[in-house]
Amino acid sequence: MTPEEFRAAGHALVDWIADYRTRLPGLPVRATVHPGEVAAALPTAPPSGGDGIEDLLADLDRIVVPGLTQVQHPRHFGWFPSNASLASVLGDLASSGLGALGISWQSAPALTEVEEVVCRWLAELTGLPAGWRGTIQDTASTACLVALLAARERASDYSETRGGLQAEPAPLVVYTSSQAHSSVPKAVLLAGFGRDNLRLVDVDPAGHALRPDALRAAMRADADAGRRPAAVVVSVGTTTTTAVDPLAEILPVAAEHGAWVHVDAAMAGSALLLPECRHLVDGLAGVPGAPQGADSLSWNPHKWMGTILDCSLLYLRDPGQLIRVMSTDPSYLRSGADGEVTQFRDWGVPLGRRFRALKLWFHLRMDGAEAIRARLRRDLANAAWLADRVGREPEWRLMAPVALQTVCVRHEPPGLVGPGGEVLDGEALDRHTLAWVEAVNASGRAFLTPAVLDGRWLVRVSIGAEPTERDDVEAVWDLMRAEASRV
Amino acid sequence: MTPEEFRAAGHALVDWIADYRTRLPGLPVRATVHPGEVAAALPTAPPSGGDGIEDLLADLDRIVVPGLTQVQHPRHFGWFPSNASLASVLGDLASSGLGALGISWQSAPALTEVEEVVCRWLAELTGLPAGWRGTIQDTASTACLVALLAARERASDYSETRGGLQAEPAPLVVYTSSQAHSSVPKAVLLAGFGRDNLRLVDVDPAGHALRPDALRAAMRADADAGRRPAAVVVSVGTTTTTAVDPLAEILPVAAEHGAWVHVDAAMAGSALLLPECRHLVDGLAGVPGAPQGADSLSWNPHKWMGTILDCSLLYLRDPGQLIRVMSTDPSYLRSGADGEVTQFRDWGVPLGRRFRALKLWFHLRMDGAEAIRARLRRDLANAAWLADRVGREPEWRLMAPVALQTVCVRHEPPGLVGPGGEVLDGEALDRHTLAWVEAVNASGRAFLTPAVLDGRWLVRVSIGAEPTERDDVEAVWDLMRAEASRV
Repeated sequence: MTPEEFRAAGHALVDWIADYRTRLPGLPVRATVHPGEVAAALPTAPPSGGDGIEDLLADLDRIVVPGLTQVQHPRHFGWFPSNASLASVLGDLASSGLGALGISWQSAPALTEVEEVVCRWLAELTGLPAGWRGTIQDTASTACLVALLAARERASDYSETRGGLQAEPAPLVVYTSSQAHSSVPKAVLLAGFGRDNLRLVDVDPAGHALRPDALRAAMRADADAGRRPAAVVVSVGTTTTTAVDPLAEILPVAAEHGAWVHVDAAMAGSALLLPECRHLVDGLAGVPGAPQGADSLSWNPHKWMGTILDCSLLYLRDPGQLIRVMSTDPSYLRSGADGEVTQFRDWGVPLGRRFRALKLWFHLRMDGAEAIRARLRRDLANAAWLADRVGREPEWRLMAPVALQTVCVRHEPPGLVGPGGEVLDGEALDRHTLAWVEAVNASGRAFLTPAVLDGRWLVRVSIGAEPTERDDVEAVWDLMRAEASRV
Repeated sequence: MTPEEFRAAGHALVDWIADYRTRLPGLPVRATVHPGEVAAALPTAPPSGGDGIEDLLADLDRIVVPGLTQVQHPRHFGWFPSNASLASVLGDLASSGLGALGISWQSAPALTEVEEVVCRWLAELTGLPAGWRGTIQDTASTACLVALLAARERASDYSETRGGLQAEPAPLVVYTSSQAHSSVPKAVLLAGFGRDNLRLVDVDPAGHALRPDALRAAMRADADAGRRPAAVVVSVGTTTTTAVDPLAEILPVAAEHGAWVHVDAAMAGSALLLPECRHLVDGLAGVPGAPQGADSLSWNPHKWMGTILDCSLLYLRDPGQLIRVMSTDPSYLRSGADGEVTQFRDWGVPLGRRFRALKLWFHLRMDGAEAIRARLRRDLANAAWLADRVGREPEWRLMAPVALQTVCVRHEPPGLVGPGGEVLDGEALDRHTLAWVEAVNASGRAFLTPAVLDGRWLVRVSIGAEPTERDDVEAVWDLMRAEASRV
């Protein structure tokens, strides 16, 4: 494709995207296809080439759009806000158009240094401790794995340079709460610790946050048995209820054992843009008993903040501890600038990286932090509004404190739940919950996702899609009540 | 940013990209900035927002473009071809504009199923064994790590469900050649095997490919000592010289020990699009002594084939062995379609994924496989032409067989190398090599990267940038000779 062909096709595609974003509110929120339907719409044989942009756009309309759950829709309240702000789409297009290759500073100095600078800007905008440095990973899942690998190596005095985990004299143990995201246990297993060496620490029954006393007891028991506490993953904003583990209380417990503390703030990290929310990570920079504070923190601008996927920030107090684990220095990547510059290949798993910093750069420059903050505050107010309405409504119950923008609810009809809130028929209550949320989703007028808490299903209303205004929240609340009464 | 603001800014950015690609041949190939120069050009304080696209485009021109080594330039011969075909740029823009979220089939059925189908198309276009299935990873580094994690778990009867590597009775060992890419040892270390359990097997001195007899001896020695051979990583196209490990001979050796065989064809995999190059992976589907063939193979369309970063394909003979290691099933990701559909989150580390398949879809449909094949054949012919010229020239030497599109050369002036090719002054020869390649690169008229082979520097001419024609290869050859004589 020549640059002139690209120019014409690019204009058509930009127009299509602008039109798509404009007509989004009229689309069903949930994908309307059945399993296999999209695949069946594609030819069996590989394409032979020669299609024009109009052919592709027609297939986006015909095959792709109906095959997506529209997470950019104003009435998307499922999973978490997964915003793709148009300013960041432009930054991503700039990255693609430049086609830069990040494998060393020399291959793309601007890719490296813009990433350093935007990470510094974000550290300032979110109030991170001075001196922490950041890098962009694809997702918080990967960031957690990377942090746990660094923790594993620090705790084992860099066993990777010897016999690896296979030669360690005593098991290393990792701690997180029973409410941690599924990516945390996954990372523990992938890093080789083994399920027997993962402790899912109890949470407090009301707030669903990790109990520091339970953590202390678990770490002591392991240490007494000759095992070695290596890392604690602290959830700031759990997936189900946005519970916030008490970092300031956890840090001294971890410090007694020299354990790495990684803060997983994947979704909630966007809230750190708001000074009034920085209490979420109180202690990060240090507390009595743990003057160094935490070791690492990751959060995803590609969620609530809205810098398009994939853009997860991983910050480290001492990047040297990570670089020592990740670095390679083959002859074919050396240059005269080595030693003076940052080599981001040594900050994570992949060697080659896209110019991901451009999407953050464009987003911050075109939208600006204040506009983003105003939107986040709007969402917090909408969540508070909904929580208030739920609290006033008979038969509806708020299932967890509303720490941020997620409201966890249950509709509890009289026959299934007693007057004091005691569950009379749990199985029937679960069936009812799943039935009404399915009815909401099947309507195409809004989308919600259920989750299990304390063994029973509830429904999460995760507020924060970029175009979601108060009337959208009012509408989903009306729809929830209508469907819960009807089913 | 509203859709209408996006429309206007998007048009301007598309125009900028078309212009940039048009004027690329006139830019210096190597980045012209010093360490810290890009960072210094950016403000210290975070941006306050409100910049327009014209501000961003001005800074792309002023700060970013001079800060990139132009790997899309027709005279980029460094590292490897890192093409970003404009058709795939459009596919990537479509992905960004849609803002789809891949965390489950339900969240984006089309993202899942288009990925399945394009991976199937590519399997057919590259002649992979029937039944193998593919997924998109970010890079071959990650794909190798993922394959080694699956290998580790299979070899340990899924130790992750117990005490992990920490409780294993005997060390698991991984094998690869001394010429394997740096990402292979890195993956071995990250997976927890430890450096003591990594065998860098000897290569044959002429072709630099792994010696199956040396592999057999190493595996037997480990097994005799009570260690357990777990995996072999086979390089099809090494980084320095594109050497091809003899897969068909390696497979029966690995099979004796039940070791996982992962084929790393990161750069060279594009050649599998050419039927005449499929001998590179002879044996993949099975050979006597190893009827099942290899276990996994990865290659990067984002290199020579030119589907923009990041797009690495990982194929597996039996995906179930990977899914068993990677799968999670939290309540908040369940839907009624589970069990009938593919969940790509269980095929790798990250939970959330972009709609990366669109860039492959657009690339194949707009450019087409035959046009891509013609370009690859052009590059092979250009490499053969250059190799022929080097072979005819006194004082120049071809340092390795030219298996594909990379030509490894050395200029050997009489005082430094004797008439029989014996190195008289190795240090001076290295200084000379690094001096002339630096002179070529400093000129801005072409870009080459050196590498160390058998302890001495050589220069790699890696042919295959999308716009590179014969006259570009002639020009770099002229420049190489001129600078080597001059320095």
